[in-house]
Amino acid sequence: MSLYSKRGVSAQKEDVHAATKNLDKGLYPKSFCKIYPDMLAGDPDWVNVMHADGAGTKSILAWLYWRESVPSGKETGDLSIWKAIAQDAIVMNLDDLLCVGIYDNLLFSSTIDRNKRVIPAEVLEAIITGSQEFFDKMKSFGVNIHYMGGETADVGDVVRTIAVNGTMTARWPKSKLITNEKIKKGDVIVGLASYGQSTYETEYNSGIASNGLTSARHDLLNKSYSSKFQESYDTSLDDELVYTGPYKLTENIQYSIFNTQYSTKVGKLLLSPTRTFAPVVKELLENHFDSIHGLIHCSGGGQTKCLKYVPDNVRIIKDNLFEPPIIFKMIQEASKADDREMYQVFNMGTRMEIYTNEKDADAIINVSKSFGVDAQVIGRVKESEKKELLIKRNALEIFF
Amino acid sequence: MSLYSKRGVSAQKEDVHAATKNLDKGLYPKSFCKIYPDMLAGDPDWVNVMHADGAGTKSILAWLYWRESVPSGKETGDLSIWKAIAQDAIVMNLDDLLCVGIYDNLLFSSTIDRNKRVIPAEVLEAIITGSQEFFDKMKSFGVNIHYMGGETADVGDVVRTIAVNGTMTARWPKSKLITNEKIKKGDVIVGLASYGQSTYETEYNSGIASNGLTSARHDLLNKSYSSKFQESYDTSLDDELVYTGPYKLTENIQYSIFNTQYSTKVGKLLLSPTRTFAPVVKELLENHFDSIHGLIHCSGGGQTKCLKYVPDNVRIIKDNLFEPPIIFKMIQEASKADDREMYQVFNMGTRMEIYTNEKDADAIINVSKSFGVDAQVIGRVKESEKKELLIKRNALEIFF
Repeated sequence: MSLYSKRGVSAQKEDVHAATKNLDKGLYPKSFCKIYPDMLAGDPDWVNVMHADGAGTKSILAWLYWRESVPSGKETGDLSIWKAIAQDAIVMNLDDLLCVGIYDNLLFSSTIDRNKRVIPAEVLEAIITGSQEFFDKMKSFGVNIHYMGGETADVGDVVRTIAVNGTMTARWPKSKLITNEKIKKGDVIVGLASYGQSTYETEYNSGIASNGLTSARHDLLNKSYSSKFQESYDTSLDDELVYTGPYKLTENIQYSIFNTQYSTKVGKLLLSPTRTFAPVVKELLENHFDSIHGLIHCSGGGQTKCLKYVPDNVRIIKDNLFEPPIIFKMIQEASKADDREMYQVFNMGTRMEIYTNEKDADAIINVSKSFGVDAQVIGRVKESEKKELLIKRNALEIFF
Repeated sequence: MSLYSKRGVSAQKEDVHAATKNLDKGLYPKSFCKIYPDMLAGDPDWVNVMHADGAGTKSILAWLYWRESVPSGKETGDLSIWKAIAQDAIVMNLDDLLCVGIYDNLLFSSTIDRNKRVIPAEVLEAIITGSQEFFDKMKSFGVNIHYMGGETADVGDVVRTIAVNGTMTARWPKSKLITNEKIKKGDVIVGLASYGQSTYETEYNSGIASNGLTSARHDLLNKSYSSKFQESYDTSLDDELVYTGPYKLTENIQYSIFNTQYSTKVGKLLLSPTRTFAPVVKELLENHFDSIHGLIHCSGGGQTKCLKYVPDNVRIIKDNLFEPPIIFKMIQEASKADDREMYQVFNMGTRMEIYTNEKDADAIINVSKSFGVDAQVIGRVKESEKKELLIKRNALEIFF
């Protein structure tokens, strides 16, 4: 049993798939989100989608960082970290919806469960303000998201700190959907980098996004958090699973990118807000729609996520993934996880896959790079008797 | 500071109102849910609503009951209790939407956060199956709710047991909205009972719904739960606030209604699923629309909820509320809460208010009774210099 399972998390979510197996699968079995007929307005040429997701346990990291970063003489820490959590809860929805081709005129409602004794009103305010600020920024790229309010419940006996979730609703024309049904042998896969600094980000993004954070938190942070912040974990976990790493969130680490040295706090890397690809994918969908055979967001399941959406008779070969950025190297070094597990849990530097014709790849890459989002052909789709995935990196070959 | 506040809950949710004060209030300031223009389809005669709510800490009671009711020789308890929680999460949304006049063609998405080490797959399955079964039952009354899927996250470091939330989306014609703007002096208030057994329920409903359950759980259940089920509460609470009551969930209690003796488990009373008024309100909206001046769901805030929605220049007099059913008497006896606090936190037997003309009250009452839902004129709207609420019961007068 992996550390990941012992901590009560599962990248493959077998339980959830079993529990939902009898639910309506929607109109397109391979689409990244479930797509239903247009029940809201009854137009046969349109569809409806409702999608829910959240910041997961990343909110715990925000809480720890906020508690630890209190300047002396003050009573509260840096509230801006909660704006990043707001962005996480939104982008985990938005970037899933991008994968079915939806990028505009979305409705968003938030669901926040908090322990009022631990999370004061000012934190709620930062999350709500942060949500609105993110929507304002997206609007400037033509990605319109309407904030419809939501529910905030005080449920301290259920929630140790805070759970920040959101739900999006969309109505969209059928002719503009991406259903992943066009993915076929011969396609190449353009990968968009999860890290770096895009033209619409104000600082370096570590690429961590909002998946695998239970593992990352325990594997990277040191034992001092275990006694000092009991609200931050399931206290019935074996002590050997809890905060087993070398770092403090407020500690600086050095790293180099292209021979340039950087220094940043561990907490900043872990709490880097989930990058949205919405400005990039919007332009791709508007100007290169026919080239796009499929879109896959490497969220839960990491680089193996594609196996749920590609046809049965293909082998996916990923032999040119991005070099994993520093945060994933730190996690792997601290957790001693093998490459197989790392690629199953984390995006490892590549977070959006665009399946396309070989001849169209360059144009797609150029659009992405024009937004400062690194992109390259990371792999291709081959004919195969059974569905499989091969990740090749240096001398390493991992089959899934 | 009340017990209620010390436990980190607030019936008035002052924090939340402060945090959301700058958000768009929608088209109608007094409407029970926020109502927005029809962004989804752009029709000026239609509107959009998105609404989020959940079962709150009632899920903890389900977990305790499920754990305690394991038959000897078996490994798991009665899973059906989880279907009631599914209904709670849905009805807390549905009955709020009824109050703006919406009762059909709804989209529902669930958001479930669980501790995988405490909540197994079979519980998720019961919740999801229970949701679908409730939708099937509503469909037979012409209340169509489409289950769009949702998100289930394994976040054991955030959630001790399970949080069951849901979000609904509706598109609705403006001409069929209830906005509470017609509430005026001279109106009478028809109250619908939260308890009893309607024609669409299979057993007695205690009337508890899904509000005030943190208090009710701690005030009613005895200290044995404190050591045996540490997953069921915030262990940093003062011991004097935790499970201070006389009962066990599996214990039978006797009570009489109209001189008939009944016997049931305490757990059954506390876990009675939130009754929906959808079949009743649908018929009222379809056949008595012009008589309905306002609709208020006495959820969080109990009998004082109306103060948020009535005009400024009225006094609401409630002098004929239903006799509180047994569950609220048990809670008050155990908690020693005064009547003022009880009416602020719980529905106390009356859970839906219909503001109407005096002459139309009988017709409305008859519709409700035809579904086996008790109804009566519980009060009226008087002119007043300042907005206030008077609850009169026997010799008691409470002003809010």
